[in-house]
Amino acid sequence: MRFGLFGAAQAQRNQGPDVDSAAGFKDYIEYLIEAEALGFHSSFMVEHHFTGFGQVSATLNLLGWIGAKTTTLRLGTAVLVLPWHNPVLLAEQAATVDLLSGGRLDFGVGKGYRHNEFVGFRIPMEEAEDRFNESIDIITKSWTSNERFTFHGKYWQFDDIVVEPPTNQRPHPPFWQGAGSEGSIRKVAARGHNLLLDQFASMDETMHRFNTYKAAMLANGHAFDPSKVGVARAFFVADTVEEKNAAIERRMTAQHRLHAVSQTPDNNNKASIMAFSDTREANEEATLFGTPDEICRKIERLRSQGVEYILLNGGGTSRVNLRRFATEVMPHFRTEAPAQTEAAE
Amino acid sequence: MRFGLFGAAQAQRNQGPDVDSAAGFKDYIEYLIEAEALGFHSSFMVEHHFTGFGQVSATLNLLGWIGAKTTTLRLGTAVLVLPWHNPVLLAEQAATVDLLSGGRLDFGVGKGYRHNEFVGFRIPMEEAEDRFNESIDIITKSWTSNERFTFHGKYWQFDDIVVEPPTNQRPHPPFWQGAGSEGSIRKVAARGHNLLLDQFASMDETMHRFNTYKAAMLANGHAFDPSKVGVARAFFVADTVEEKNAAIERRMTAQHRLHAVSQTPDNNNKASIMAFSDTREANEEATLFGTPDEICRKIERLRSQGVEYILLNGGGTSRVNLRRFATEVMPHFRTEAPAQTEAAE
Repeated sequence: MRFGLFGAAQAQRNQGPDVDSAAGFKDYIEYLIEAEALGFHSSFMVEHHFTGFGQVSATLNLLGWIGAKTTTLRLGTAVLVLPWHNPVLLAEQAATVDLLSGGRLDFGVGKGYRHNEFVGFRIPMEEAEDRFNESIDIITKSWTSNERFTFHGKYWQFDDIVVEPPTNQRPHPPFWQGAGSEGSIRKVAARGHNLLLDQFASMDETMHRFNTYKAAMLANGHAFDPSKVGVARAFFVADTVEEKNAAIERRMTAQHRLHAVSQTPDNNNKASIMAFSDTREANEEATLFGTPDEICRKIERLRSQGVEYILLNGGGTSRVNLRRFATEVMPHFRTEAPAQTEAAE
Repeated sequence: MRFGLFGAAQAQRNQGPDVDSAAGFKDYIEYLIEAEALGFHSSFMVEHHFTGFGQVSATLNLLGWIGAKTTTLRLGTAVLVLPWHNPVLLAEQAATVDLLSGGRLDFGVGKGYRHNEFVGFRIPMEEAEDRFNESIDIITKSWTSNERFTFHGKYWQFDDIVVEPPTNQRPHPPFWQGAGSEGSIRKVAARGHNLLLDQFASMDETMHRFNTYKAAMLANGHAFDPSKVGVARAFFVADTVEEKNAAIERRMTAQHRLHAVSQTPDNNNKASIMAFSDTREANEEATLFGTPDEICRKIERLRSQGVEYILLNGGGTSRVNLRRFATEVMPHFRTEAPAQTEAAE
């Protein structure tokens, strides 16, 4: 199995002195440098705007910095929200990170789900999917065309352009998409893109989504490779029930904060990521919180359905948590190849 | 005096195998790492699009990578072309690089002058200045406002946003602007921005521009600090006249290529950077090409007018050229402080 990380640094502008903001980023960078050494495969990083609590906004810039400080770690976005970006500028930025990192970019993209961001950028939420699809087309064309081309879409127009630099990965870095509903998952499979499954859905729902994608990939004539499905899960290695419960409380508080910035005024945001259950029990069920044994049993359950790639969210940068997972959980899921070979592949 | 570098890597998509593109970037990064060790103060890097010969497009991504590999080198853009960018996304990207680098960003901006880029992005050249001014206002507000704000401009609108992360430099990274005509230089001074003078203008013209800016800064009630004027010059340390002439020929060829992508169809591009003289004599006069003695005399002439900061363009990544300049020219212009202290300030 493969284990990656999912999350992000925070750099607040309103609270605490400047040094805290830089430390927020720098601490996360140091965390990922250690994660690479411990055998983690990747780091997927969010993009968010205008939160007021400092979530990462310029994802490809922070990810590039991390790329320069690491050597094998895959550099993932989870996810870049295409409606905010000029697709050609984004293709150039992503190609630059892919080229400099020797082909380590995993290009995760989404159409956006947070109401406050649609308001901030003044983009109607109804246009999200249309804009997303158009941008995918432009970015793919930008990466793969060695000849000049012209693109006249509904939202973006470009005349007589050739997009540089080239990507390192050919034909281009892999696309990853988050999806939850059956319809969305089928669209991801129709494009042949890799799939990101969110950290909030229950284990049963997650396995259902995994199998929906697998069937849809095969139905579309694509090969199915479980390393192309990243299952996000929160993790916390605890020795006692009290520690575990305290971690669940922290998680629920953070979740409410995210929910508040994402919700629409009519309290009816339809994004599947917004539909998580809000109970303590549901939180416990959906997470990898507990003793190493408890965590191993849950991962085993996912593996029994074919899951081979888990993206872990530690809800911060606890090195103890990271090291305990690496030393007390990961060894149970080693494949034949030693960790070093796996990380360098 | 201070010596920085000005230029960029190239990564072509059409010529040669992939490894050449990555090598183009990596070679430039290694060049700058050595430059920092040799006592160079900064590296200013261009932004260009759709050239077909691989000029840097995602400047803040390459510059960030360089920031991660260096410790004191100032990271300059020369220049980011504001009309191409969503100003809020650009403010976030620049703040991220400034924060991660510990406040090393020099934010050079321009309104664009290359016809092929206006065509590619489908932005009328007539809107360039208006768009530039609006973006400066939004970016400044984004960097300095700890409170949410709304901005409804002619080209960009944002509602209820707070822009993160914070910059490291306060109130914000310094703005640098290129300018050539007297009117443009006065506008730069009116904003109190730092000035970049191009590598093409003659020595006399350059000194005239320098003095125009100095007078305008003082007239606007700003302090005048010569470290806030970067004078770009091409440099090549040669032992013989033949070597020097060959370097001038190479330079003229490259210049024609840039001119060709920049020119408007009516052959009447009014940008001051397009107005360089095309003769071999004019090229020799405007450059720092020649023996160390010849180069020192030219720099001395600039210094006699108050110039204290030169941005050198080596037209490539010749380490021999870089080292010879550092060891045979720079020591003649050491100020009281030793080089190490200067680089670490």
